[in-house]
Amino acid sequence: MTTTSTTPIRNGVDTAQVYGTLDVLKAQPDAARFEFRVRNRWIDGTHSRSTIHDFWGAGAEDVSRTEPFIVDASEPPVLFGHNEAPNPAEYLLHALAGCLTLTIVNVAAARKVELHEVSSTLIGVLDARGAAGIDESYRNGFERIELSFSIRGDASPEKLQEIVERAKARSVVYDIVTNGVPVAVTADVS
Amino acid sequence: MTTTSTTPIRNGVDTAQVYGTLDVLKAQPDAARFEFRVRNRWIDGTHSRSTIHDFWGAGAEDVSRTEPFIVDASEPPVLFGHNEAPNPAEYLLHALAGCLTLTIVNVAAARKVELHEVSSTLIGVLDARGAAGIDESYRNGFERIELSFSIRGDASPEKLQEIVERAKARSVVYDIVTNGVPVAVTADVS
Repeated sequence: MTTTSTTPIRNGVDTAQVYGTLDVLKAQPDAARFEFRVRNRWIDGTHSRSTIHDFWGAGAEDVSRTEPFIVDASEPPVLFGHNEAPNPAEYLLHALAGCLTLTIVNVAAARKVELHEVSSTLIGVLDARGAAGIDESYRNGFERIELSFSIRGDASPEKLQEIVERAKARSVVYDIVTNGVPVAVTADVS
Repeated sequence: MTTTSTTPIRNGVDTAQVYGTLDVLKAQPDAARFEFRVRNRWIDGTHSRSTIHDFWGAGAEDVSRTEPFIVDASEPPVLFGHNEAPNPAEYLLHALAGCLTLTIVNVAAARKVELHEVSSTLIGVLDARGAAGIDESYRNGFERIELSFSIRGDASPEKLQEIVERAKARSVVYDIVTNGVPVAVTADVS
């Protein structure tokens, strides 16, 4: 019997689990449906709070989280808040960084590349004349996002660049942020 | 001199400050440029950590935050993590909720509407066969987001619905999520 000395845990990712899950998704397409949920409540001024707990995925209601995550959002004083928390646009950058980073780590693990560092700086630029309703020639959101990675790993620069490209091609949040997604808003008011 | 008994603080928003800022943006368009920044570092597996502190806006480097915000992201076990934090797609929903909510509150304050409740539930649906690279007919990101508000305030239902519509038309993150934004990714690798 031929064995290798590699462990299935690489970059902190259980690659045996990853391949097992891929097999399940291929065999049972119904398991691929995920529904993530966030509940948010206004506190005061620009300050609101989200509760993040349950979700549907892999064919079942997830029960792995015994406690909900509580995450606040607000604004700095110059945008009429009191710095109670990061602002929503900063959370969007955080979501993008976290998703590309974990996708890079997963792809590297699948390709047997050991990583030592993945760090990134993100910059989102906007002109507030859009969101302020002063000049319709500016959009409300970021005009662009610049993301710079610094990656150190046991592979050639070419292979590490390929991993970044593969992560861009597979990241959930990179797809949402670059391509947009339909958002249906309803409001029960009284 | 005619005065009213209304205070400039409404829904926790200093409306005098809001109008003052709008006057500055109209008079000095350079003040409208904002640059938000997030620094992220991989910890292990699907787990990463963002530091959110400084930004450029209103014509100056902001110095209002004495300490950085530290925000983690990870995944639940079914997506190869250990529930160290909400996942990136959930943070994106949180960003959307926080931005629409504070925009509703700001718009209501400007329109002299007192709000008593703004709460929301968001659902993001995706088929993981996209991000897993199993079936190219599915996108990586959410196929759709459903957002349901519950809003109570001292105004007619019609006026409250108008405020929601105005917030959709002015929200930074709603624009980004529905329309997408160009993301330039560079990687320094070795």
